[in-house]
Amino acid sequence: MSDLIPTQRSRVKRLHERGAYDFDTIASILDVGLLCHVGYVIDGQPYVTPTAYWREGNHIYWHGSSASRMLRTLEKGVGACVTVSHLDGLVLARSGFNHSINYRSVMLFGRAHKIEEEGAKLRALENFLQRMFPGRWQELRPPTKKEIKATTVLGMAIEEGSAKVRTGWPHDDEEDYSWPVWAGVVPVRAVVQPPLPDERLVGAKDPPAYLADLGHLGLQTK
Amino acid sequence: MSDLIPTQRSRVKRLHERGAYDFDTIASILDVGLLCHVGYVIDGQPYVTPTAYWREGNHIYWHGSSASRMLRTLEKGVGACVTVSHLDGLVLARSGFNHSINYRSVMLFGRAHKIEEEGAKLRALENFLQRMFPGRWQELRPPTKKEIKATTVLGMAIEEGSAKVRTGWPHDDEEDYSWPVWAGVVPVRAVVQPPLPDERLVGAKDPPAYLADLGHLGLQTK
Repeated sequence: MSDLIPTQRSRVKRLHERGAYDFDTIASILDVGLLCHVGYVIDGQPYVTPTAYWREGNHIYWHGSSASRMLRTLEKGVGACVTVSHLDGLVLARSGFNHSINYRSVMLFGRAHKIEEEGAKLRALENFLQRMFPGRWQELRPPTKKEIKATTVLGMAIEEGSAKVRTGWPHDDEEDYSWPVWAGVVPVRAVVQPPLPDERLVGAKDPPAYLADLGHLGLQTK
Repeated sequence: MSDLIPTQRSRVKRLHERGAYDFDTIASILDVGLLCHVGYVIDGQPYVTPTAYWREGNHIYWHGSSASRMLRTLEKGVGACVTVSHLDGLVLARSGFNHSINYRSVMLFGRAHKIEEEGAKLRALENFLQRMFPGRWQELRPPTKKEIKATTVLGMAIEEGSAKVRTGWPHDDEEDYSWPVWAGVVPVRAVVQPPLPDERLVGAKDPPAYLADLGHLGLQTK
């Protein structure tokens, strides 16, 4: 996959040393996320909608009801901005103004396209579910024509954008290191709790093996 | 505080039963978050920037370097959309299309204003830090004129917007409940790990008492 070339809108300006444009860094941040925030414009007004997403090769995808305002707007190919952010820690410094957050984020710019062909749409949705829960797609009640028709899948090429990452310790002014206040990092993680079976299960109540480790989604098991 | 009146842009259209407009619901979602996603428009192109935020009364605030493109755009009073989302769980249903996510989200529309007066700006930043770590502000190296000047604080009234919340079990089609696949919910939580002291601490290495419980920030202690 090609690395991204910084553009006027994608170049990380503030704290540019935190910016990255190589495909592997961007993909590694996208691949452990579940929710993105999609930005779009209607009549000059920005909207930011949280939604699930997934990556395949050099595209990201998201989906939803065909009636969704967000999807109906974006399927026209208007400008979109898709942002993915992971909170990794709270950074406590000696000065209030040097406090920070450890994070990994990606901001992508582009225009989405709708996956029109039914077979391609179904394969994309299968990839989405299989990425989360390998093997589950085959266990499910098969999709109906009506379900597929009622769902819109949008894709966007990963062509323009950037990653921004902060890791590590507080960066205090040199003369502040003698100030006697606690400083350091409080790590934050997304953690899954034990799966809760639906009360109306007819099969085994024990959760399937693919729920034992969701580390590929950036979710730790407690 | 006043409840919000749904407007053309803030009314929850898809799955409208998940929507809420009362101030208490909106505030309860905002108050346990750290990161929002701010949407704005430059030359017709949407941008979505993740940043820390806080609430005081019926305003939300966010801040950053005075040189930030996001802040310099929004301080002009152009249309903004601020979205806060908490991921609460993965919902596994009997049909792929009934899979869902449990979440709490708020989408706010408005125009930001810059806090110009130095004293008001400093009080806002003090409130931000004290909300996270009660008592810490007084322990820190006091702010300098230069730090205050280099920081922009924006506020936006909580006047137009909505909350959207999904909780609970999968909603399968009635005839699918006999399908013998595991279904249920995998709860997801944001969890803090033990604080890591900076190597250059001159005072006590033990973390301060206000780090023992960050539940008010939606962060559980492992």
